[in-house]
Amino acid sequence: MSGYDDATRARWLGIAEECRPALLRIPLDPVGLVAIEADGAAFQGWRAAPTGGMSVLYGHVLRNGDSFVLDFGQHLVGYVTLTLRSVKGKVDGPLRLRLVFGEIPTEVAEIIDPQNAQGISRAWIQDEIITIDDLSQPIRLPRRYAFQYLRITLLASSPYFQPQLARVAAVAVCSATFFELPPVPPGMPAHLALLDQIALRTLRDCMQTVFEDGPKRDRRLWLGDLRLQALVNYQSFHQDALVKRCLYLFAALARPDGLVTADLYESPAPVPGDVLLIDYALLFVSTLGDYAQATRDLATAADLWPVALRQLEVGMSVLDADYVFQLEKSPSGPFVDWAPTLHKQATAHAILLYACASGVALAQLLGRTADAQQLQQQRDRLRRAALRFRDPATGLFVSGPERQVSWSSQAWMVLAGAVESAEGARLLTVVMQDPSALKPGGPYLYHYMVEALYVSGLPEAATRLLTSYWGAMADLGANTFWEVFDAQDHRFSPSVCNSPLLNSYCHAWSSTPAYLIRHYLGYGEPAGTP
Amino acid sequence: MSGYDDATRARWLGIAEECRPALLRIPLDPVGLVAIEADGAAFQGWRAAPTGGMSVLYGHVLRNGDSFVLDFGQHLVGYVTLTLRSVKGKVDGPLRLRLVFGEIPTEVAEIIDPQNAQGISRAWIQDEIITIDDLSQPIRLPRRYAFQYLRITLLASSPYFQPQLARVAAVAVCSATFFELPPVPPGMPAHLALLDQIALRTLRDCMQTVFEDGPKRDRRLWLGDLRLQALVNYQSFHQDALVKRCLYLFAALARPDGLVTADLYESPAPVPGDVLLIDYALLFVSTLGDYAQATRDLATAADLWPVALRQLEVGMSVLDADYVFQLEKSPSGPFVDWAPTLHKQATAHAILLYACASGVALAQLLGRTADAQQLQQQRDRLRRAALRFRDPATGLFVSGPERQVSWSSQAWMVLAGAVESAEGARLLTVVMQDPSALKPGGPYLYHYMVEALYVSGLPEAATRLLTSYWGAMADLGANTFWEVFDAQDHRFSPSVCNSPLLNSYCHAWSSTPAYLIRHYLGYGEPAGTP
Repeated sequence: MSGYDDATRARWLGIAEECRPALLRIPLDPVGLVAIEADGAAFQGWRAAPTGGMSVLYGHVLRNGDSFVLDFGQHLVGYVTLTLRSVKGKVDGPLRLRLVFGEIPTEVAEIIDPQNAQGISRAWIQDEIITIDDLSQPIRLPRRYAFQYLRITLLASSPYFQPQLARVAAVAVCSATFFELPPVPPGMPAHLALLDQIALRTLRDCMQTVFEDGPKRDRRLWLGDLRLQALVNYQSFHQDALVKRCLYLFAALARPDGLVTADLYESPAPVPGDVLLIDYALLFVSTLGDYAQATRDLATAADLWPVALRQLEVGMSVLDADYVFQLEKSPSGPFVDWAPTLHKQATAHAILLYACASGVALAQLLGRTADAQQLQQQRDRLRRAALRFRDPATGLFVSGPERQVSWSSQAWMVLAGAVESAEGARLLTVVMQDPSALKPGGPYLYHYMVEALYVSGLPEAATRLLTSYWGAMADLGANTFWEVFDAQDHRFSPSVCNSPLLNSYCHAWSSTPAYLIRHYLGYGEPAGTP
Repeated sequence: MSGYDDATRARWLGIAEECRPALLRIPLDPVGLVAIEADGAAFQGWRAAPTGGMSVLYGHVLRNGDSFVLDFGQHLVGYVTLTLRSVKGKVDGPLRLRLVFGEIPTEVAEIIDPQNAQGISRAWIQDEIITIDDLSQPIRLPRRYAFQYLRITLLASSPYFQPQLARVAAVAVCSATFFELPPVPPGMPAHLALLDQIALRTLRDCMQTVFEDGPKRDRRLWLGDLRLQALVNYQSFHQDALVKRCLYLFAALARPDGLVTADLYESPAPVPGDVLLIDYALLFVSTLGDYAQATRDLATAADLWPVALRQLEVGMSVLDADYVFQLEKSPSGPFVDWAPTLHKQATAHAILLYACASGVALAQLLGRTADAQQLQQQRDRLRRAALRFRDPATGLFVSGPERQVSWSSQAWMVLAGAVESAEGARLLTVVMQDPSALKPGGPYLYHYMVEALYVSGLPEAATRLLTSYWGAMADLGANTFWEVFDAQDHRFSPSVCNSPLLNSYCHAWSSTPAYLIRHYLGYGEPAGTP
């Protein structure tokens, strides 16, 4: 049993609702027209080339088949209003438009009906066909979109009048405390400042009534993502009430056994998602600890402490006699990374150890001495057990019967403090030089690898990895950072998506360069800033 | 100049607005599911075969590609609301539906993207693609549709939940004084009663805030159509204020030269259409005369008399020295019929004569003796001139340098009183037996041919023609009568449409069987009924 009753859950849900942020609403106009051109050197083979200002479109009589791509100059999340007019002739029949919104050029360039019966909904692709009877009123599209580009194609009209687009306007929405990006801290080099600003735009556009994973897809709160978003937020927007809201939502909607689900749904009424991921559940402890550290809101941390403790209890319950994490006993597997071949036992053990360390620190902060002592004992046993994952010859952490060597296992074991810092630095250096070692499959794990390098006293290597991975996205024109990025395969899409058209290209788990740079390279705001 | 100033026009527009009817709103549910099956014997090759009740759909978990056709049991005009639910799993992504509305089975059976660049807007086809983010609320489609059938296809959803349609409901709208069809008069034979009821449903569904030509297309007031709609209305719904509204709209929006346009637009603000058709303009006189006769509202007739007179003045101004109507001098050609090869001079002359006769009768009714006398003189001269169109050998009216013999010329000359009744009966009989004579291209002209037979004392021939033409539509399953019907070519579409998918299948100019049967066969309501 969870130890928190219905009344407590209701109270928590009430607090979550009190913390629901107002959304900023910022009018944004398109900055011009672009042509989407095939270009083998461009990301996914498409680039957007400016072709003129909006006056070209606004002065153009639309004919059937005409197609224009509007560039809003930056990624945004929001609503679009179209204003049309007939410059000659009565509007004697309806007008049919196709509208395709794209975060990147590919989405407005390619055929948009992937045969995707096994994957997630193709309806995530942001295209609409609308039929307009009345041109005298602006047409406000009811749905929210995430986009920089908008393709408008006239599918059908009448030869008896001459329609024009008179105005296309957007209203961007977000729950950041301000829409402008936080300024680049003094002294930050330009190449890092670029990544910092892209990262912050990414985070901003995911800040809605919860921290969404991505505003195109899934438009939903995930716990692993929340943890990283919160870390960036503490360095930038300081919208701490949004973190608090999300923590309370996860707590209020925890499963009957007290585990928090990996995701949850806000509307029509808050409900937990069906997905459980043991690593995400354990990272609730770290997320709460980060929050307490960053905000000094110890009341919230104390209120939710039973939830944190419960995640650790369940984690401890799946250990074997040697205190080793047993995947098959776990109520669910961990996520860790997209890489399909990753063996996750060593990482799962490391994340339990990591969360346990977070728990010790938080218990101490809250003055819960007994809890702190008990968790410290468990932590010590987990740390000793972690050494069973080490290869006697190399010292590397290995996982599974095939003794898989991965960046994941090293990074998380290092972050969890399974080895001393110097040894951690050695392991990270070795694994990065080992071409057979399994590398991360996406930004979420790259984040933890970079962070492991920083905490192991390898800031140059950390920054180098950060700038090579996220910098490559920037070099390819990213305006926000992407859900997945494989430098060797630009069109990589996780199996659940099965099409790069369904990938999210503004995904907050990729926004951590702003945190990593500011926090670990000393560009953060002065200590004591709330 | 028109003789009616801006202040008068503004007053007329005000009266039109006062007469704007409230719309009845009648909830209607689908009656069941149908399969649309290829059937060479069915209209346009498709028939709707019942396959089950709505519970089959409402209990079905929708999979990508699933497609159902709902039958509402009758033609209706209105709005549709869909209610969806997930019976298993969280709604983790949007759902994409294609909705296709059809007045007849063809529209929900066939590929819906005709290459129709030269014709009217393809957007008249009633299909939508909608993406639904929130299944918790009913989805009310904002547009109005005219339909009996609704195909719903699931284009995309997520494998992680099981969507169902929980309810599909319509609200029918019309401005008829009551939604139920006026009852069949006592004694009317079943085969005529069937046509009467189809006709009245046709009229009802075209009765909106104006008499629309067809509620699928053009959804607009046309004068030639209004005239026939009003005649049926006087025998059935008695929504006379709607006729008054339409007459005042045409008058208020007349061109600077005083001619009334063939059509007009109600919204966003009332404006005249760009189309002028001289026959429609002249029939304003007859429409006003019919109204005065039917309603005894002589105040309206007197108020609008200058408009009627102005149409006749212009008509008289395009005569040659022999008092013969000159097409090339006319400010526009007449419509008369869809048949593309029809030579329209004789008919145009006849319609001027007909309108002049209406003018004489109305002037007498209004006690405008001087106008009546002047018009009577013109009428006499027009009648004499009409005889110039007769072929000396056969007596048939011919038109054009090739001396074309058409049903149109005979019908309108007979209706105009160009010959005595017995001679008219002879001409009509001869032309119908002449296989080389050009027959009507659609219901609008068929109406006047049938009426010509009735007024010539040939009620059996009239009823036979009526039952063969409209009866064939009924035999083919018409629930409302169609804009065009060619028994030899079910897929005929006027050149402006260019696809049977764009034809209107509830078109009020086809609703006249109810008038013709009730008025000419003595089934009308007792004289004196308002």
